[in-house]
Amino acid sequence: MTDCIFCAIVAGTAPSVIVAEDERTLAFMDINPVSDGHLLVIPKAHSADLLDIPPEDLTAVTLMAQRLARDAVDEFGADGVNLLNSCGADAWQTVFHFHLHVIPRYLDKTRDRLPAVPWTPEVPGDRDLIVSLGSRLAAAV
Amino acid sequence: MTDCIFCAIVAGTAPSVIVAEDERTLAFMDINPVSDGHLLVIPKAHSADLLDIPPEDLTAVTLMAQRLARDAVDEFGADGVNLLNSCGADAWQTVFHFHLHVIPRYLDKTRDRLPAVPWTPEVPGDRDLIVSLGSRLAAAV
Repeated sequence: MTDCIFCAIVAGTAPSVIVAEDERTLAFMDINPVSDGHLLVIPKAHSADLLDIPPEDLTAVTLMAQRLARDAVDEFGADGVNLLNSCGADAWQTVFHFHLHVIPRYLDKTRDRLPAVPWTPEVPGDRDLIVSLGSRLAAAV
Repeated sequence: MTDCIFCAIVAGTAPSVIVAEDERTLAFMDINPVSDGHLLVIPKAHSADLLDIPPEDLTAVTLMAQRLARDAVDEFGADGVNLLNSCGADAWQTVFHFHLHVIPRYLDKTRDRLPAVPWTPEVPGDRDLIVSLGSRLAAAV
């Protein structure tokens, strides 16, 4: 897709540090890493986001992410890994070609720039609201 | 698995607000939601985390999460969605049965308690370190 930086990376016309690829996916290092080893897995075929990506590509991206999460633990001694997908500008998406973040995590905070927890943890929600919203989703499915 | 709260939810011996299920997966509302509609998708078979889950279960969980992300956008008018997996205590995992968070996002901050962005965005990394780490991963694959 014209003007898509990730399509340009797939095409080889934009620079990147590629770490793995297969028929459907490409994995490369994030240039603004939030931890050491932070990388992105994308489908080679353009999809804008999670709502847009075909199931075959989503599956392939996820399995590639799992493989690289294991490699990050083995190779870098990561203490954990986060997978993150941002779908939509209001969910922090900035490049509109689907990408799954693989973020190795470390107790050593010189290697990890994420906060302890990015939200107030363990705050119980409104029980009635949860049941109501759940019922609506259950009916939608 | 004994003493696993999510296995108890699968077995029906612990309460939950279930929104969807299929042969391999179960989706239910998070009781400590960070946004309206925040839910979890899990494999029915116990796996501790991303390093442990078999590919067939990981695939099924991911496709169920995509379906529910779409439903959250359609049903709740969410402005975006985040998918998050935490693998390991140091990556914020608190229940050691694999789960994928589906977090609908809203411009209306009365419905969304996540911060604007949970890290300092767009900070370029050390180029040499990125290349070095990427080379190690590429060799590991």
